[in-house]
Amino acid sequence: MSSTSPAARWRVDDVPTPALLIDPTVVERNLARMQGYATEHGLRLRPHTKTHKSVHVAARQIAHGAVGLTVAKAGEAEVMARVEGCDDLLVAYPVFDPARRDRVAALARGGLTVRVGVDSALAVDLLAEAARAHDVTLGFLVDLDVGFRRTGVQSAAEAVALARHVDRTRGARLDGVMFYAGHIKARPTEQAASLGSVATLLAEVLDAWHASGLRAPIVSGGSTPTALQSHALPQLTEIRPGTYAYQDMNGVRGGHCALDDCAASLACTVISTAVPGKVVVDAGSKTLTSDRNSLFSDSGFGHVVEYPQAKVVRLSEEHGELDVTSCDRRPKLGDRVRIIPNHICPCVNLQDRAWLLPDEGAADGYLQPLPIDARGRLS
Amino acid sequence: MSSTSPAARWRVDDVPTPALLIDPTVVERNLARMQGYATEHGLRLRPHTKTHKSVHVAARQIAHGAVGLTVAKAGEAEVMARVEGCDDLLVAYPVFDPARRDRVAALARGGLTVRVGVDSALAVDLLAEAARAHDVTLGFLVDLDVGFRRTGVQSAAEAVALARHVDRTRGARLDGVMFYAGHIKARPTEQAASLGSVATLLAEVLDAWHASGLRAPIVSGGSTPTALQSHALPQLTEIRPGTYAYQDMNGVRGGHCALDDCAASLACTVISTAVPGKVVVDAGSKTLTSDRNSLFSDSGFGHVVEYPQAKVVRLSEEHGELDVTSCDRRPKLGDRVRIIPNHICPCVNLQDRAWLLPDEGAADGYLQPLPIDARGRLS
Repeated sequence: MSSTSPAARWRVDDVPTPALLIDPTVVERNLARMQGYATEHGLRLRPHTKTHKSVHVAARQIAHGAVGLTVAKAGEAEVMARVEGCDDLLVAYPVFDPARRDRVAALARGGLTVRVGVDSALAVDLLAEAARAHDVTLGFLVDLDVGFRRTGVQSAAEAVALARHVDRTRGARLDGVMFYAGHIKARPTEQAASLGSVATLLAEVLDAWHASGLRAPIVSGGSTPTALQSHALPQLTEIRPGTYAYQDMNGVRGGHCALDDCAASLACTVISTAVPGKVVVDAGSKTLTSDRNSLFSDSGFGHVVEYPQAKVVRLSEEHGELDVTSCDRRPKLGDRVRIIPNHICPCVNLQDRAWLLPDEGAADGYLQPLPIDARGRLS
Repeated sequence: MSSTSPAARWRVDDVPTPALLIDPTVVERNLARMQGYATEHGLRLRPHTKTHKSVHVAARQIAHGAVGLTVAKAGEAEVMARVEGCDDLLVAYPVFDPARRDRVAALARGGLTVRVGVDSALAVDLLAEAARAHDVTLGFLVDLDVGFRRTGVQSAAEAVALARHVDRTRGARLDGVMFYAGHIKARPTEQAASLGSVATLLAEVLDAWHASGLRAPIVSGGSTPTALQSHALPQLTEIRPGTYAYQDMNGVRGGHCALDDCAASLACTVISTAVPGKVVVDAGSKTLTSDRNSLFSDSGFGHVVEYPQAKVVRLSEEHGELDVTSCDRRPKLGDRVRIIPNHICPCVNLQDRAWLLPDEGAADGYLQPLPIDARGRLS
């Protein structure tokens, strides 16, 4: 994997910090592994691009065999519509405000297949109206709550009612069901019971659905923590993991990946050692976010690669405070350290660009800028 | 206060959400109040610009009487050097990486007074070297830890030793002392004991300092929570509050401001009401940050202006979940609500632009874009 942008004249040792470093070798391995799993189990892979927000990485996902891409917001859809080889976008998010639904419908004009996840008849009506205004058809997936209790219809009856509504609305095409099992964070080997409940609910929904004469060519699930157990849900046709591209400490501490699978880290500089027992780096919540580990909220704000006994105990906006009292050696003033964040997705959104590490053995050793094309696309 | 950017064709009711709305009337009142306090007590005001990151708002602070501006990073300094009427910048942050110290020194070439806060001799040496390379002099403030335990020298003896080091270094000018009392979060009326300890430490440091024949024309403190009690520290010559310009729920719940003093809110759209008892808006941690309230960590992720009984109970990146079970009326699908965030500073950093509300009674009622000029300046 290499970026097409012109090489910047920075190396790992002098790039201005904090800097988000991406190891392209690890990314390629992560992409290949997830695609291999999907292919082996006859599942289509539609990666969520919220993690990397990069046209370049998305193109690599398509090159590996992804059937399309997933986004949350209209602005992200507009960016990912530029990805070479991508002719199929899922906006896995209900689209309400007028400007946004117009932009989503407009995207479908050039032959791109555009689908939207919805959990209300009003969302269908407003989006279908926008579709008709642009003389296009939008695909719809009925969003089903499988236990995360964030969005999604609450029962098979509600799912079928909404599916019927889509089916009879001009400008709308019923494409199936989607869900997000964000509540399942256990280690893959301990997910059987939770996934069993999801499978039971899916079977009930799809039975009622088919009994009503409706079609569901797409049944879409598969967050990164559950992705490699997707074969436990026989109804699934596709998965939408996002984080797997870069991985993070939520994944490591959750048992969903190894430390070596983390492709992204923040290079920081030690700026103060004045307070006894502490070392302060120039990456705070403005760089790492304030996201605590999703399973171990007291584990600090990331993992210090070179000093694994250090704990990132407190963040201000521009300061990361490391408790180094358990370290047998300590970083010195001006030293550089790398921190793997708890949650890589919002962290990527805080940077204007990442930097691709040089391929192993590359003679020049320069970093290549990786634009974060969909950064800040809030709507 | 009005922006000089061309008016965008959005009103409050149709601006794409989530959108950061700023009430310029409230900002002006906040700026006037803090300047009035500083002037009354013979203190210079040097606002920290991290809150608004806006050249326009910074220029208003200078127009109200601020003697200069405060920033954390070199990139922010470069932006704020453009502010009309500002000839004096404090980088209240030790500058280490080579690119950054070169940029800070370069800023001083055009006649701008540039000072840096430091807590190590190494920072002084590296910055002075950069200053000499640019044929300029940098001012230095010795960063003193008054109890927050983040950065800063630990004693009067350390402060004097570092001050002496500055004083004998070519390219460096000793300008005084700075501190950040981030540990004092009590209501202003309950800060007396904490501020008394700070005053005692400051007296000890300055006595030793002056006994060594050193000068300290600047003694700089004053975070927003303590700013209006700065007269309790007789040694202070200037204050550096930042958040006061916009205020936020940390300030409201901490008793440092009233709800009416909050100038910034996020306009959001209700995108799902499918889960009983919940209403979901299109602003999550990618818009509001994951920052919990600094004093009441269980109070949720902000205050819903139109539905004060609603609690923002959980954030995903793009979803804000409101528990509305205590509300006597509930927002409907597609409705807009405004959320005042816990911590406005990192929230501003997540937006490419804010929107200035029209002045009360303005006939056209259009929002004016307010660029967030220093957004994302990480280094």
